[in-house]
Amino acid sequence: MRIFLVLGHRAATGPDFSLNDLPGSAGRLDILCRCVNSSFFLSHDLRRDTELYLVLQDRVTVRFVGSGLRHLNPDERSTAALIQRALTAKGRLRGDEELESTPGIFVARRGLRKALEEIQSRVERLFLLHEEGPSLHEAELVPDIGFILSDHLEFSPWELELMRDLPRLSLGPKSLHADHCIIIAHNELDLRYDPEPC
Amino acid sequence: MRIFLVLGHRAATGPDFSLNDLPGSAGRLDILCRCVNSSFFLSHDLRRDTELYLVLQDRVTVRFVGSGLRHLNPDERSTAALIQRALTAKGRLRGDEELESTPGIFVARRGLRKALEEIQSRVERLFLLHEEGPSLHEAELVPDIGFILSDHLEFSPWELELMRDLPRLSLGPKSLHADHCIIIAHNELDLRYDPEPC
Repeated sequence: MRIFLVLGHRAATGPDFSLNDLPGSAGRLDILCRCVNSSFFLSHDLRRDTELYLVLQDRVTVRFVGSGLRHLNPDERSTAALIQRALTAKGRLRGDEELESTPGIFVARRGLRKALEEIQSRVERLFLLHEEGPSLHEAELVPDIGFILSDHLEFSPWELELMRDLPRLSLGPKSLHADHCIIIAHNELDLRYDPEPC
Repeated sequence: MRIFLVLGHRAATGPDFSLNDLPGSAGRLDILCRCVNSSFFLSHDLRRDTELYLVLQDRVTVRFVGSGLRHLNPDERSTAALIQRALTAKGRLRGDEELESTPGIFVARRGLRKALEEIQSRVERLFLLHEEGPSLHEAELVPDIGFILSDHLEFSPWELELMRDLPRLSLGPKSLHADHCIIIAHNELDLRYDPEPC
């Protein structure tokens, strides 16, 4: 089980955005769509052992569950359309319940704190991917693992305070986009825990 | 200098496609747009030492030059619009000349053979990224290096014949999308040749 959480600091929390303008009106939803791609796509297959939490403005969480996903395509636009459907379904939510908007995609009125609690109960170790941490490539990892990432904006002081106990890992000397970080983490885990060609 | 070449087997070679349907009418141009993203984007910066050749149906080559790129954004749609402008400019080409359609983006009526000749004259070593090769992570690499990749389709017998002398490298036990391979190759090169944080 691999879980990624990406913070979308300005991402739309409602469905009123244009699929033709994901970077603008949707608040850099393009980044989050690429994180969906990075989390799940293999060549002609999906990573069924992976989940992705997109936490939008600390108010809404859209959760992608690899084992249940259908109708997911690798391009940004069609992924954004699935997120838009989740944000439309959000209108039917009561309290902090979670609702499956399309197969394998869930939406809830939950923020970072709740998502962290949930992930920590489900993986053996949870890391913050951060430029200041030691190298992932040399770190002790485990197969049941989680990673927290941020979109184009830095982690806020409040977020860092909430996650002050999480160990940090970095990926290399360059500062990278979140979706690129997910690819590198997956590859490191593949090399360690899934050495046979599939 | 790092050079990537990606074969777009069915990608549009003319500008008559919809930006709203990159996977369909544009012949999986979405994949090639993500390869542009993977090749060049760092967080708040571009990889100026990188070039990317997109070879479309072995008839047209769109070349992205990191040192000259302007107006490049990470989302698929805006990148596809730049490729569309290159394919419109193609109409003004004579013979096999190359034309700069927007800053840092060049178009020519050239196929794989010509692109390979050009790349081989510019890098010290050129590799085919292929599932059957030995691991990139354990291979002897050089800073001036090139990699050939394919889109969602396998290399054709003709392409493999043309590149029969190129050494092969693989990236791990999973079969990955081309854009994901580029990320992993960049990371390995960053770790070896650019160990200082930038």
